[in-house]
Amino acid sequence: MTVTIIGIGLIGGSAAIDLRKRGFAATILGVDNDKINANAALSLGLVDEICTLEESVKRSDLVIISTPANATLTLLPKILDIAGNKTVITDVSSTKFEICQKVKNHINRGRFVASHPMAGTEFSGPWAATSGLFDGRGAILCDTDQSDKEALYLIQKMYETLNMRIIYMTSSSHDTHAAYVSHISHISSFALALTVLEKEQDEKNIFDMASGGFDSTVRLAKSSSDMWVPVFLQNKENVLTVLRTYIDKLREFETLIETEEGEKIKSLIESSNKIRRVLNCNKN
Amino acid sequence: MTVTIIGIGLIGGSAAIDLRKRGFAATILGVDNDKINANAALSLGLVDEICTLEESVKRSDLVIISTPANATLTLLPKILDIAGNKTVITDVSSTKFEICQKVKNHINRGRFVASHPMAGTEFSGPWAATSGLFDGRGAILCDTDQSDKEALYLIQKMYETLNMRIIYMTSSSHDTHAAYVSHISHISSFALALTVLEKEQDEKNIFDMASGGFDSTVRLAKSSSDMWVPVFLQNKENVLTVLRTYIDKLREFETLIETEEGEKIKSLIESSNKIRRVLNCNKN
Repeated sequence: MTVTIIGIGLIGGSAAIDLRKRGFAATILGVDNDKINANAALSLGLVDEICTLEESVKRSDLVIISTPANATLTLLPKILDIAGNKTVITDVSSTKFEICQKVKNHINRGRFVASHPMAGTEFSGPWAATSGLFDGRGAILCDTDQSDKEALYLIQKMYETLNMRIIYMTSSSHDTHAAYVSHISHISSFALALTVLEKEQDEKNIFDMASGGFDSTVRLAKSSSDMWVPVFLQNKENVLTVLRTYIDKLREFETLIETEEGEKIKSLIESSNKIRRVLNCNKN
Repeated sequence: MTVTIIGIGLIGGSAAIDLRKRGFAATILGVDNDKINANAALSLGLVDEICTLEESVKRSDLVIISTPANATLTLLPKILDIAGNKTVITDVSSTKFEICQKVKNHINRGRFVASHPMAGTEFSGPWAATSGLFDGRGAILCDTDQSDKEALYLIQKMYETLNMRIIYMTSSSHDTHAAYVSHISHISSFALALTVLEKEQDEKNIFDMASGGFDSTVRLAKSSSDMWVPVFLQNKENVLTVLRTYIDKLREFETLIETEEGEKIKSLIESSNKIRRVLNCNKN
């Protein structure tokens, strides 16, 4: 099968590696409007050729759009225009509702399967692509009643090849959940990094003292703004709801520390400890 | 040398393993008022004997207090009372100022070296003890002008045996920095876990969707309340300052997302990306 990957970064590149290695894709065409990324993807062997959007879509059985969410919103209707009856299209972006809304009345809507593989690292670009990135993680397929059966079947096979657990939900429900389990983690990390860096300007010792706990909570603050700004804007209402709840919880800690209510802080921490069961469920 | 470890959990137990293995301690005595922990420490081979506080201090060249910070505050003056002229005492707690204040006029103050090895995991108890926990991390020694020279020398040797980089600062400065690089990370994680768990009561899918990013930001929410409540209370002023700065940064994200100011969000994220240089400095 010939597969096109549009945007050959961490996600697109990692998919390319395993789809080829595991026999799903015989030929992989790459599209990237960043020339450096495109050349790197070619020389790293992630793709066989770099093509124009139009050429690659016309030659492919499957097109994977793995660009930032704002680019996906612009590209998807164009690709549906170009795609013939046999080409299947999927995207991998972290927001789903606005994207599904955008094409819901498109004549070729059935060829599109909206998806979100819940995997990634804080790194980006084709150099960050790695085999096994998706193994054991969840892949969300959204509004699948809007997709043609055999298009859906192909995307199911693709995620099975990537060793992902497939989960089905509406695009609206996806965006609510994603705000809680992913988008807020990033804002939390970005804000934590800003807090520390603001202090650090005159207090260099912080560098020497950072330990494992600090590393893990600010790890996501390395993440790319190109990816995350459109996510926060496309999922604005859900992100704001969860961000406000988060600030309320922090205010609760603030008040209890201020009034030195040790027993109540203890009980808050013990409630938060219940997250163990979530984390243990999600071990690879 | 005979070493006593008071509170044989993650930190005390991990120190026991490597101090013995690397030839620093010939005999290790354990004190723990939790019988289950004490028995586990003995059967895991972390300590050679379980003793009373008084007996162990009297028999030891070195006493390491690795209890929660509130217990350390109570125990330290008692141990200084019992300790003879040759016994050196150190603690490993995450706050230093109040502890140093508490004993600053004690007749045996010189025998005490206030320290904080910046290492740990989200697990606790003797079962969590592991070799290599401290390797490559920083150990802070505080107010060392108050310690006898040869007491300080012994503690330096101990941390060198644990492969730690020794950093010197005042107890007051330590507490400011620790609030930024460690204490706030924990509050951030606890509050994030509470936010997600509150939502999850009626939305079970969150479990299925949690990915690597989420895991790493809430990992610390598994941490023990027994350890952290006293830290937040003993370091109240610093923790409140950093917590308020953190809430301000989150509010900044909230406002910019609300008003959809993409360029300004991008610039905030890019500023936070500078944390890369801190994290890269701290790789083991």
